[in-house]
Amino acid sequence: MTIELINTGTELMLGRVLNTHQQWLCRQLAGLGYEVARQVTVSDDGPAIQQAVREALARADLVITTGGLGPTSDDRTRDVAAELLGRRLETNAVVLEEIRQFFTRRNRPQPRSTEVQALVPEGATILHNAHGTAPGLVLEAPPGRFRTKGTWLFLLPGPPRELRPMFTQQVVPLVQKLFPLAAPFVCRTLRTTGLGESQVEERIRGPLEALVRGGLEVGYCAATGAVDVRLAARGPQAAPQLAAGERILRELLGQAIYGEEDALLEQQVIRLLTERGQTLAVAESCTGGLLGHRLTNVPGASAVFLGGCLTYSDEAKQTLLGVRADTLRTHGAVSEPTAREMAEGVRSRLGADFALAVTGIAGPAGGTPAKPVGTVFIGLAAADETVVRSYFNPYDRETFKLVTSQQALELLRQRVGSVGSVERGERGA
Amino acid sequence: MTIELINTGTELMLGRVLNTHQQWLCRQLAGLGYEVARQVTVSDDGPAIQQAVREALARADLVITTGGLGPTSDDRTRDVAAELLGRRLETNAVVLEEIRQFFTRRNRPQPRSTEVQALVPEGATILHNAHGTAPGLVLEAPPGRFRTKGTWLFLLPGPPRELRPMFTQQVVPLVQKLFPLAAPFVCRTLRTTGLGESQVEERIRGPLEALVRGGLEVGYCAATGAVDVRLAARGPQAAPQLAAGERILRELLGQAIYGEEDALLEQQVIRLLTERGQTLAVAESCTGGLLGHRLTNVPGASAVFLGGCLTYSDEAKQTLLGVRADTLRTHGAVSEPTAREMAEGVRSRLGADFALAVTGIAGPAGGTPAKPVGTVFIGLAAADETVVRSYFNPYDRETFKLVTSQQALELLRQRVGSVGSVERGERGA
Repeated sequence: MTIELINTGTELMLGRVLNTHQQWLCRQLAGLGYEVARQVTVSDDGPAIQQAVREALARADLVITTGGLGPTSDDRTRDVAAELLGRRLETNAVVLEEIRQFFTRRNRPQPRSTEVQALVPEGATILHNAHGTAPGLVLEAPPGRFRTKGTWLFLLPGPPRELRPMFTQQVVPLVQKLFPLAAPFVCRTLRTTGLGESQVEERIRGPLEALVRGGLEVGYCAATGAVDVRLAARGPQAAPQLAAGERILRELLGQAIYGEEDALLEQQVIRLLTERGQTLAVAESCTGGLLGHRLTNVPGASAVFLGGCLTYSDEAKQTLLGVRADTLRTHGAVSEPTAREMAEGVRSRLGADFALAVTGIAGPAGGTPAKPVGTVFIGLAAADETVVRSYFNPYDRETFKLVTSQQALELLRQRVGSVGSVERGERGA
Repeated sequence: MTIELINTGTELMLGRVLNTHQQWLCRQLAGLGYEVARQVTVSDDGPAIQQAVREALARADLVITTGGLGPTSDDRTRDVAAELLGRRLETNAVVLEEIRQFFTRRNRPQPRSTEVQALVPEGATILHNAHGTAPGLVLEAPPGRFRTKGTWLFLLPGPPRELRPMFTQQVVPLVQKLFPLAAPFVCRTLRTTGLGESQVEERIRGPLEALVRGGLEVGYCAATGAVDVRLAARGPQAAPQLAAGERILRELLGQAIYGEEDALLEQQVIRLLTERGQTLAVAESCTGGLLGHRLTNVPGASAVFLGGCLTYSDEAKQTLLGVRADTLRTHGAVSEPTAREMAEGVRSRLGADFALAVTGIAGPAGGTPAKPVGTVFIGLAAADETVVRSYFNPYDRETFKLVTSQQALELLRQRVGSVGSVERGERGA
């Protein structure tokens, strides 16, 4: 079965926005066992859209488009599809009424132009849009029109908050009904941190070899401060194959695995602290707030995250955290003793169970031969002890901050979650 | 002139990573007056790459590919291109030596597999890779092979830190030489904040109409908390047309314009503070560190950003900032008086010229009928006065944080930069 994806939008072709639809849709489909063979982007130009859709209809079993269903003159996809398939556009009374209600509920006048969104190619199936006014449309190109077999064409709206729920709730069940998988499919992604991609691969490639020969797919994806390993298997032996692969990964990667699928390190940290009823404070110098930002992205963080201090200047380290002037003078702001005093200072001030402190040189300026750009000390203070680790992250400024925050969160996760990690490892085995 | 872009990578088709190449390359080309007609993504599959490249060579004057030039078995683009164009692959001694030196300089053993990257299709122009081992390759498909005219094929490496400098330093001059623009081209993007896309459009669409009839292109791009307006013009009158358009934008959008091209609000704030020799502190509740994170992403921020406090809990607001228990009890943590005391507290503690304080309800939980999710107070303390503004940002958690941080930075920019903005407005006129 062949799937092609077409994203339309002049703003995409001008590079004004990132194409997040491609990643999101491909990921959803891959998780269900469907692979997208080709993705195409064209501008909001009628002939360009028509050419792209016509070519895709001649190659694929399923073509999904995003964008171009709105009310303005550069929304061309509906017209193009109707013309290509030789269908008349008819005003659909139900959709028209839904559009009216959309504006009524929001106490906003309905622009006349929005009525065009009630035009539906004859024979199309309508996908209700719970978050906007343009419905999704499903059409079938009959066998013989573009290729020997028929092709299904799904037209979906462009705004992510409209597209995503429509896809999950309506498109997925329909695709699974129209294109049932020939064989069972399972996949699993394990996320690691602290190891490079080649280190991860080196550890597991050999031991996985027999399973790979048996059909297990293994994929690696390296992001900043993290490496994902994705296992996938098809066929009657899919489930035991995947389980065997996961067992090997958990055994050989152990503590480096911080979560599954789309889990984020900050979510794991908040979850572990919440489970244990423990609290956290932070003292950030070189990460400048990123650590707090990541933690507070997690809903419910307020139950365990008390707050902290951004102590960019030496004075702030003294005033807000009580770091001693003597420590700063003798060892410098980027040093093991400063990280220790920062962690202990914020922990005692906020009365937290744990405190993380980060001090380092993000660059591009500020490095010295003894402490080059990329030097970092991370302190973790708890009731019983304070540990400080040093790292070297010689990257550009934003990568430096991201990697450093990742290391700090991981240090805490390993400390708070050592019991939980073993449990998860055993469950995997 | 027609340009097509092909990105290869199985990780893209599985949705494991975002395609940032598309945006970056399209944006660079658009800024030079070249538009990309079509962008295609396929996996690291030889036949799929071949089909995509062959089709593009039959349609376009210039085809650019990214990825698939590395040393592993899933790097197929070089072989596919050589085969399509009927060129033998020959080991290039210069490239081979560069690869050897790459590893020597890094004191790393050279894996034998990397030598494959010295294979060059006969007749290809080599683009030196200053940050990796795979050179870029430029080939010309002769007229009559894929279409009547010839087509240029540029093969570029996948890693962004290798691709970007190679593109800027070597590809751009070559493209400009091979495809000189038929007419002068100029473009300019002005970035605004504080107005919605439709508000921006409403203000300027009418006044720009005459210029648009004369050929000025106007594009809008709405991002979270910001709207970009892009003007572009071609032909002998391009420069005066663009200048006239920019004058209208600056007159009608005025203070809402915070910068040009890729400028970020945090960069403008740091720049203004640096110019004036003034310092800043922050007190963040609901943004949880994002404000500090954004400010410290700017190189040189340490000269003006002293630090601040993340006061997520009520206790932290009292302990770290001196917010009075009575204020919290009477007005609540999310209130005008609390924002005021937070701003004044952090300003006096760190001895800063300005202090920003943010308190609000990010949700999903924590809202009340009187203070629903999305309620925000932002305080700005200076030597002469403290102002507090209220906002309502009823979005998901991450959007809420981003919009709120944008509003805080904008409040400060307008205060610090009011003189500078007028100057820029006058220069624009």
